[in-house]
Amino acid sequence: MSKHTLTARSDNYSEWYQDVISEADLIDKSPVRGCMVIRPHGYAVWEAIQSDLDRRFKETGHVNAYFPLFIPQSFLAKEAEHVEGFAKECALVTHHRLRTSQDGGLEPDPASKLDEPLVVRPTSETIIWHMYGRWIKSWRDLPLLINQWANVVRWEMRTRPFLRTAEFLWQEGHTAHANAQEAQEEANRMLKVYRDFCYETLAMPVICGVKTASERFAGAVNTYTIEAMMQNGWALQAGTSHFLGQNFAKAFDVTFQDADGSQTHVWATSWGVSTRLIGGTIMTHSDDTGLILPPKVAPIQVVIVPIWRKAHEKQTVCDFADKVANALKGNFRVRLDDREKMKPGAKYFEWERKGVPIRLEIGPRDVTSNSAFCAKRTGGKKFGIPVDGSLVETIRSELDSMQEGLLQAAIERRDANMHKLTTYAQLKELLDDQGGFALVPWCDDAENEAEIKTDCKATIRCYPLEGQEEAKGQNCFYSQRPATHMALFARAY
Amino acid sequence: MSKHTLTARSDNYSEWYQDVISEADLIDKSPVRGCMVIRPHGYAVWEAIQSDLDRRFKETGHVNAYFPLFIPQSFLAKEAEHVEGFAKECALVTHHRLRTSQDGGLEPDPASKLDEPLVVRPTSETIIWHMYGRWIKSWRDLPLLINQWANVVRWEMRTRPFLRTAEFLWQEGHTAHANAQEAQEEANRMLKVYRDFCYETLAMPVICGVKTASERFAGAVNTYTIEAMMQNGWALQAGTSHFLGQNFAKAFDVTFQDADGSQTHVWATSWGVSTRLIGGTIMTHSDDTGLILPPKVAPIQVVIVPIWRKAHEKQTVCDFADKVANALKGNFRVRLDDREKMKPGAKYFEWERKGVPIRLEIGPRDVTSNSAFCAKRTGGKKFGIPVDGSLVETIRSELDSMQEGLLQAAIERRDANMHKLTTYAQLKELLDDQGGFALVPWCDDAENEAEIKTDCKATIRCYPLEGQEEAKGQNCFYSQRPATHMALFARAY
Repeated sequence: MSKHTLTARSDNYSEWYQDVISEADLIDKSPVRGCMVIRPHGYAVWEAIQSDLDRRFKETGHVNAYFPLFIPQSFLAKEAEHVEGFAKECALVTHHRLRTSQDGGLEPDPASKLDEPLVVRPTSETIIWHMYGRWIKSWRDLPLLINQWANVVRWEMRTRPFLRTAEFLWQEGHTAHANAQEAQEEANRMLKVYRDFCYETLAMPVICGVKTASERFAGAVNTYTIEAMMQNGWALQAGTSHFLGQNFAKAFDVTFQDADGSQTHVWATSWGVSTRLIGGTIMTHSDDTGLILPPKVAPIQVVIVPIWRKAHEKQTVCDFADKVANALKGNFRVRLDDREKMKPGAKYFEWERKGVPIRLEIGPRDVTSNSAFCAKRTGGKKFGIPVDGSLVETIRSELDSMQEGLLQAAIERRDANMHKLTTYAQLKELLDDQGGFALVPWCDDAENEAEIKTDCKATIRCYPLEGQEEAKGQNCFYSQRPATHMALFARAY
Repeated sequence: MSKHTLTARSDNYSEWYQDVISEADLIDKSPVRGCMVIRPHGYAVWEAIQSDLDRRFKETGHVNAYFPLFIPQSFLAKEAEHVEGFAKECALVTHHRLRTSQDGGLEPDPASKLDEPLVVRPTSETIIWHMYGRWIKSWRDLPLLINQWANVVRWEMRTRPFLRTAEFLWQEGHTAHANAQEAQEEANRMLKVYRDFCYETLAMPVICGVKTASERFAGAVNTYTIEAMMQNGWALQAGTSHFLGQNFAKAFDVTFQDADGSQTHVWATSWGVSTRLIGGTIMTHSDDTGLILPPKVAPIQVVIVPIWRKAHEKQTVCDFADKVANALKGNFRVRLDDREKMKPGAKYFEWERKGVPIRLEIGPRDVTSNSAFCAKRTGGKKFGIPVDGSLVETIRSELDSMQEGLLQAAIERRDANMHKLTTYAQLKELLDDQGGFALVPWCDDAENEAEIKTDCKATIRCYPLEGQEEAKGQNCFYSQRPATHMALFARAY
């Protein structure tokens, strides 16, 4: 176990983030550029996210399936905007065999060169819509509501653990509908599923909105987004849901016979969240001591540390700690830390860095008084709790209030750093100063958007779904023309 | 829904298998050579397998993690036998960008050529042992018990749905231990986990054994296997567990400091099962009507089909069917099939082909008598069951007895087709005739093994762990030399 002090958030936010991740053993650098090794403590967070989201997807009528990792290059080319968006960052498989080279090393065997290169999927719209063309014949086959849990690869030049990596894990929903309205409703429904999940499970408040044309998914008619605010005031796009119109159905010629016998192109959505959510959760809650995780996704929710000094105390204390652990197991994810030859202080230190919400310390006096000493990762004075029939309820209540407290703190921080501005000078001042989100009246204009991005690195995160009526009668904070939208500006990961 | 008749097993076993899969909507051909699209009904079987196995892995102390999809070519080369085994069938990533070609199409951008090609993982020993070198320092870090759920790619020339595909889904366990004995115990433990899972969950009896040197995993000291018998008498290697000795620890120089201060190379195991298990399950249980699945992995365990002729009956029947469905939900995976404009017979037909264990038919008379008519996928006369407080127990008991019945039938079939032979002529006769497994006294000899494989396509599936003492005093059925083992011969997928 390391004894390093973490970089403070106020000193260097980016280094602090790296330190939190490495001290919590969440991921490790991989020998492959831009790829991450997700260690068990990090992967367990992803498992908690998966299991919760998967339940929500199934409750809303979706089923899982699996499509090939490889996509023929020609498929990518079928949707013009799509290929434009992904061609520049895709891993290409060109050979299927290694041979011994002249210097005794290995090299791709030229005789194994593929007729057509295969793209390692950056997203699966193209191969899925190819298959939908085989499966969808009539209105009876619709809606088709499929999700996939998979790895995808985008050859990013600048990577950051969890937030932007060459390979990442995600889910991608791909749905097919008989008309525009149903597809539109699905895109909205899944955005709401993501929103609820972020609030309820990750304790991460997000703002729902729609992307401008320049930030849209390549091939979408409209991209909806949930945007979270990190502790440094930067935005994180935490998930997106796309209304794809008939773009992919037309590219792959997927039509259905309607009840009246007519042939119509199918309407579509796609939506996804990824391991990026883990990065967002870390950046939302953690502190200068290390990782803080909302209890609902903490791999270990309660750690029990028995404490003894003299040999004769050991058995009594460990038996009691074991009893406490057994009382909690089945209700919570519990770890009994009875490692020998390691001081209690070192154990506290380790579990704090790993973001365990509750630590129960048990010494000889606690055994005598039939209680445990409770320390919460989010701070406050330690306190004794009785080890009796009320134990499970006490712990549940503490975890629930911690989950709620993390959400409230995040909401307050977000609201405190959300600024309604009316001039561009104010935006630049805000970004130079404390940072945060700026909500401004805006006249939709891609060129102005690009100018601002170049000038001060702020982008339009979204046009929030709520509060658009405020734009009426105001002038654009940049062009002074009549405002068409309320726009949310921020620097973003 | 199709109305085709399946090819009969006795006519063409291979076509029958393809028909079962396609009529049950388990998978579909993909536009990428050798890759499969796993459709929702097929993927749900994999989800059931995953969830059951994952529980067993965690109960035996393992945690999940995730390692990169890409492996540097040079890593593969570090273990001599390993690279020999995988170099000839691996997908190679050589470029990371597409550009527009002169004819207006797309091509890999030569400027994006990678310095070192990346291998799409065929298995992850090399990258994992590279990481273990960073994580393992002392005996305190051992044992390290990690599993990964992932996709892997092996460029197979001849593919068959589920059984042999270029990309497949699997889990791979990779463990590190302080001494040979612990690693050996782990390899045995996981073989037993697989064995129990196959018996208890897939109702697929397997024979545990050890592979001969020529069938060993590339890089293993010993490969343990579970071998199942398909209905045509062919064997299926359903899972393997490898004792890797110190081979990978030496290739990646992974040592640990023992309690006495000495540096020793770490001992290792790896073990895996894949979507191949789905193929094995299909081939073990299904019949000429289509798919049969053991209840424990059936995506739908009970389908309820309301039946009405006259409009006024519809409401009553559907309300009652709904009540039955609600009584069963939460206990079983239930589907209420109230599709309109589809005859009950057509529904029966569809669900039989999809392998649903129990069908409850509900007509007006069943409503009156407060009962449902129960048809079992494994046959027998239909019978009425009361719809009252006993319903859940009745269904549970029917599913349990079906699960047990499928296992017993498979065991009986296996035992009936297991032949103790003493001459090579008998083996050839067996394979020409009814097929099956042959247990023979054998003198371990790689050349003889290869000769037999060439001559009659039979391979040594394993030296069964049980019954080896029988070899004593016998002569090899092929070479007539004193037998060293009892060997299990069969043709295999």
